[in-house]
Amino acid sequence: MQSKGEQPLYRDETVSTAKRVDDLLERMTLEEKVGQLVGTWAGHLSEFKDIDDVADEIRDHNVGAVASFGWGGAVDKRLDDIVEHVNRLQEVALSETRLGIPILFNVDAVHGHAYVAEGTAFPNGLGAAATWDVDAVERAADVTATEVRRTGAHQNYSPTCDVARDPRWGRTFETFGESPYLCAKLAAAKVRGYQGDGIEDPSSVVATAKHFPAYSEPERGEDAAPVEISEYLLRNVFLPSFLDVLDEDVESVMPSYNAIDGEPSHGSRRYLTDLLRGTLGFDGTVVSDWNGVRMLHDDHKITADHRGSVRQTRAAGLDIASVDAIDHAEHLVSLVEDGEVAEAVVDESVERVLEQKFRLGLFEDAFVDRSEARDVVGADAHREASLDAARDSMTLLQNDDLLPLEDDADVLVTGPNADDVVHQLGGWSVPEPEGTDVVTLRDGIADATSGDVVYEQGATMNDALDVDAAVEAAEHADVAVVAVGEPWYLHEFGPTVDTGTEPDEFPNRHTLHLPDAQRDLVEAIHETGTPVVGVLVTGRPLVVDWMADNVPAILMAYYPGTMGGQAVAETLFGENDPSGRLPISIPKSEGHLPTRFNHFPHPTPIGQEEHPSSYDPLFEFGHGLSYAEFEYGDVTLTESTIGPHETTTVEVPVENVSDRTGTDVVQVYVTDHASSRVTPVRELRGFDRVSLDGGEATTVEVVLDATELGRVDEDGERQTVPGTYTVCVGDQALELTVETTYA
Amino acid sequence: MQSKGEQPLYRDETVSTAKRVDDLLERMTLEEKVGQLVGTWAGHLSEFKDIDDVADEIRDHNVGAVASFGWGGAVDKRLDDIVEHVNRLQEVALSETRLGIPILFNVDAVHGHAYVAEGTAFPNGLGAAATWDVDAVERAADVTATEVRRTGAHQNYSPTCDVARDPRWGRTFETFGESPYLCAKLAAAKVRGYQGDGIEDPSSVVATAKHFPAYSEPERGEDAAPVEISEYLLRNVFLPSFLDVLDEDVESVMPSYNAIDGEPSHGSRRYLTDLLRGTLGFDGTVVSDWNGVRMLHDDHKITADHRGSVRQTRAAGLDIASVDAIDHAEHLVSLVEDGEVAEAVVDESVERVLEQKFRLGLFEDAFVDRSEARDVVGADAHREASLDAARDSMTLLQNDDLLPLEDDADVLVTGPNADDVVHQLGGWSVPEPEGTDVVTLRDGIADATSGDVVYEQGATMNDALDVDAAVEAAEHADVAVVAVGEPWYLHEFGPTVDTGTEPDEFPNRHTLHLPDAQRDLVEAIHETGTPVVGVLVTGRPLVVDWMADNVPAILMAYYPGTMGGQAVAETLFGENDPSGRLPISIPKSEGHLPTRFNHFPHPTPIGQEEHPSSYDPLFEFGHGLSYAEFEYGDVTLTESTIGPHETTTVEVPVENVSDRTGTDVVQVYVTDHASSRVTPVRELRGFDRVSLDGGEATTVEVVLDATELGRVDEDGERQTVPGTYTVCVGDQALELTVETTYA
Repeated sequence: MQSKGEQPLYRDETVSTAKRVDDLLERMTLEEKVGQLVGTWAGHLSEFKDIDDVADEIRDHNVGAVASFGWGGAVDKRLDDIVEHVNRLQEVALSETRLGIPILFNVDAVHGHAYVAEGTAFPNGLGAAATWDVDAVERAADVTATEVRRTGAHQNYSPTCDVARDPRWGRTFETFGESPYLCAKLAAAKVRGYQGDGIEDPSSVVATAKHFPAYSEPERGEDAAPVEISEYLLRNVFLPSFLDVLDEDVESVMPSYNAIDGEPSHGSRRYLTDLLRGTLGFDGTVVSDWNGVRMLHDDHKITADHRGSVRQTRAAGLDIASVDAIDHAEHLVSLVEDGEVAEAVVDESVERVLEQKFRLGLFEDAFVDRSEARDVVGADAHREASLDAARDSMTLLQNDDLLPLEDDADVLVTGPNADDVVHQLGGWSVPEPEGTDVVTLRDGIADATSGDVVYEQGATMNDALDVDAAVEAAEHADVAVVAVGEPWYLHEFGPTVDTGTEPDEFPNRHTLHLPDAQRDLVEAIHETGTPVVGVLVTGRPLVVDWMADNVPAILMAYYPGTMGGQAVAETLFGENDPSGRLPISIPKSEGHLPTRFNHFPHPTPIGQEEHPSSYDPLFEFGHGLSYAEFEYGDVTLTESTIGPHETTTVEVPVENVSDRTGTDVVQVYVTDHASSRVTPVRELRGFDRVSLDGGEATTVEVVLDATELGRVDEDGERQTVPGTYTVCVGDQALELTVETTYA
Repeated sequence: MQSKGEQPLYRDETVSTAKRVDDLLERMTLEEKVGQLVGTWAGHLSEFKDIDDVADEIRDHNVGAVASFGWGGAVDKRLDDIVEHVNRLQEVALSETRLGIPILFNVDAVHGHAYVAEGTAFPNGLGAAATWDVDAVERAADVTATEVRRTGAHQNYSPTCDVARDPRWGRTFETFGESPYLCAKLAAAKVRGYQGDGIEDPSSVVATAKHFPAYSEPERGEDAAPVEISEYLLRNVFLPSFLDVLDEDVESVMPSYNAIDGEPSHGSRRYLTDLLRGTLGFDGTVVSDWNGVRMLHDDHKITADHRGSVRQTRAAGLDIASVDAIDHAEHLVSLVEDGEVAEAVVDESVERVLEQKFRLGLFEDAFVDRSEARDVVGADAHREASLDAARDSMTLLQNDDLLPLEDDADVLVTGPNADDVVHQLGGWSVPEPEGTDVVTLRDGIADATSGDVVYEQGATMNDALDVDAAVEAAEHADVAVVAVGEPWYLHEFGPTVDTGTEPDEFPNRHTLHLPDAQRDLVEAIHETGTPVVGVLVTGRPLVVDWMADNVPAILMAYYPGTMGGQAVAETLFGENDPSGRLPISIPKSEGHLPTRFNHFPHPTPIGQEEHPSSYDPLFEFGHGLSYAEFEYGDVTLTESTIGPHETTTVEVPVENVSDRTGTDVVQVYVTDHASSRVTPVRELRGFDRVSLDGGEATTVEVVLDATELGRVDEDGERQTVPGTYTVCVGDQALELTVETTYA
């Protein structure tokens, strides 16, 4: 089927995407088709491949997807190299393959384009969630999409939809915390930011919702361990984020590495086809997590060999095997030839892949421009957006009249995270500082005070340095800012070759306590009598009970991104009001895990007084102090009885009763008394940020939707449960009735 | 329907039970029927009731079941009182109610008749499991049934089928540990022991399998918290024990307090009817756990009121509401009258209850004899059986050439558990020592050595006593036996009124470390240079890392029962070979939980070396040292390929290469490579104890059944999975193939 004139129909951009896909598919050999369903990499993974190797794979095997930058082991971390190689590989695909199908480049730009040295890194997941700012999260994703696209990539393996369930898990920092509602709203915002009005927009990228359907409650906090949860938890804790990103037409979904109910997601038709495409109606691409296919045999041990794993993933509904490359392709060709996989299954996947390539406009323009990339990546406006996000994430855990600091304070800056670029950026960022332009805490504080600033590192993550020097400096300072916490890491606190810490050293999955070296430093400084501000630069909650009992001020900074040091300094000195709120509970010890605000009620067989509290965190979910002071008037509901799909508005009169500008986050919790199932003691169901000048007042309105108060049923629908609910804001509680029929 | 002559048909013991039930049921009013479906108590529960109150309830409300002894708050703890009151209440039931239906008395005799001061207490669950001795566990249950029945009770709320999943859980000590296989075999043995050849036997009792279907993996280790596990875990970890006790025709099942998949078991038709009666084919009685009905409203909050809870439990399939008594009865009558519960539902339950009463012979003889009870309860033979069980449970964790001790050693005996009767008995035993005849460690050691024995308590559970005196005594002793561990407790380490420890004090669910007072005592004794034997009298694994690193010998004694002190002493002095093996892993810390030998394999995304081990206990499941030394010859399988329901025998040549008699426990583990589901890295699938004289050799045979190697499917059947398995014994591994058809 040739269009009139010279070019084939699929090259005619005036023709509908569906027709172009059909036309192209019809021309493809089995090998060419299969090539579109596998990806390859340039860099260090199971083996090292350079750009030439990738060019060969494209030329010889029609490989359709490439990761040559935008991830940890990638060959290219610098802008100019990236652009050069992207264009070179596209040229190979377009000119040296029979059909000239452009390459889909994919990246791990999960908190900004942070694997590019010049890129803008935003606060990592938990920090982003601490802003409770849907718009800011969307803006960050929009900035990221623009930077990613200008460097030549088209698919971003983000957002993370995982709900934090165990802070021992090494990927807790990537999540939006422990509230399924907050996770869902922020994941949806990220999809909007990435995909804009659609991937036809040249500043958008394919968003990839991960990790489907449930990854983040692995046994023992072990990364990729089985998630052996009930259907009820699956639907009501893990699926809500996916429901919301599917509502945003997310283009791609990535299965989780782990098994659920005994079935590894990558090989599960139940999850990838029956649930995802059937029940939830997803029609985009399913792309494997790296090596997710091989793991079916090598780790889960549910197939006899790699070929069996390829067969099983295809039966399950996988479209793209992201780094399985040639091996996968060869097995798949042979499986089709042997009749073990129907060619129609391959065709369906190829159609999905090609459709995205057409819609992305790659057949019209697959190349990127170096000067355009230089203008966009790390642009001032992008850095400002990152700064804003970091400011809004700063969560003041306690403050015994120490903060804000005087703007001429003499400050000792100390601790392993006071001046370390890569630790400040956290995981999924360049592992070396070269080429970055990051504002550390030390930089930020030097800018913020007119007093003296002395920096003395004092300790690495696990080892003491010159503590005496730090103590000496503390004795001459007005205040000591001690930045403790975690280094950057991926998965289970590695890779060791980059992080320099051994698997059993801190950070690890067994302890949430600071290592002795860091705690000793804090204690030594504290003993000088100079007041200590503890700044926690950390991916996840740490058990800082000693600090909580002893030092006057603790600021949770998360991994705050490129501009993090400035955001911390502005907060300590009062230029920025700390408006972050904890998106996750900080537990009292590892033995207190899980510590969740939305735990279930349960019987107390020997009497209520005999059973310790089910929620006893060191710092609560939603906690965070402002320098201003807010008071709530009488909270009201516009309607106290609503129909099954109606809404009511929670009206919260908020007054800033202090004399300084500040930001409050109004949090609306709902308790379900209606359900015949056991439901959490409370769930977050709405929130809003409000900034008010001193003395200013307003009424914050938070809309509650009866449908969203319901449970997710086996059809993946939010099912209204009629009956009585309690709506709580601060210490006020109101009754809400949901009826079976409209009022 | 009157039989010929004077007496009604149901009183004619020559008539079939079915006919007697029919006849009696036909005569009953609704109130009389409902009376048979509720139980009451004499003692301290939600309120205090004495025997007179119970007599009134029987007389006025036809209450059919009574707990006046055999539990913690019961009015009667002494034999003579028990017998007197049982007979009195039966007299009321027989003479002062219209139909004269005898009472069913029920007890919590979970490790012997231990709520009777004169009764025989066996080692509690974990200790019993440490024997790995199916026959001994059956014998203990047989002894218990005899003692229980002679005191007038007919139903025992035992065995516990729960599998230990989190040692923070306060009921861990009641379980048979973390192997589903070991739990199943021992639970089945207990049912055989309790029920004998059937409850028609006057020395048998109704066994009650609990807690159905899954109780022991509560969120956070909180007793009665939701168990939100996958179907896969439900079937393959929690159901196997129930399958095995159902094979033994267990007469009664008790639902768990908690919710599973959002549904509290007591109100769940899915679990109590569809699964238990439908899928699993159970036809006995379902009896509520205490207050389990009320909790549906009060705690789970899934019903509007108690009446709604009664309705829901009846729809679910409950037969007897154990202590709901009059309230429950009145609601149930009203629900039937209002048409909300069908009378046929009530009739079915009454039939089951009456059938058991007839089969127990209660209509022929409901009374007990005081002198017979005195002869039987705590009889010498029973104490000897308890001693044997305790001996076989002694688990030597480490021994650096200290044990066995010389029989003239001068010994310091110290620690809070060296001479405390109630702590030694553990939970589900009389909470005061009065009237008991228990051999403590102090007693046992005094008997075992001809040297001097000095006792100095040194510490209570949480507080130091005269440590200096203990240190002083240690300095003059050859060896110090320091008995540390836990006090007795129920559920979540209470009730405080009896245990004297506050909810947050040790023991609690947050820490498995010994409290400072106990650790300080061990350290102080250790510092004298006198060698220390640490004896752990404890319900569950404790994190004894300091002891493991510092003291030469550690003996795990569990809660060893009436004769426990003698068993410990005989073991320390070498009269008994320590032949217990850990039925549960001892973890390194709370942050290492869960630590299970049968964990699942999973991917290691950043490379195997980067991910800490998934199994890294302080002491492994199955561990335990003998004073003898055993060597295994080449292990063989009689058949290395078997059909789907065939067996093969693992033949293990065992030689005692030492010069002393000792006992080995051969453990056979199997790894499933066949399944298309993720299966544990290994499961225990067979075991046997073997005692050999020095130099003696034998071949131990352990039968493996292909069916039992399979998975439990959704029909509740063990489904053979054809393919390859690895059979491991010690460090030897053999391949076993299971075929789809018979060879």
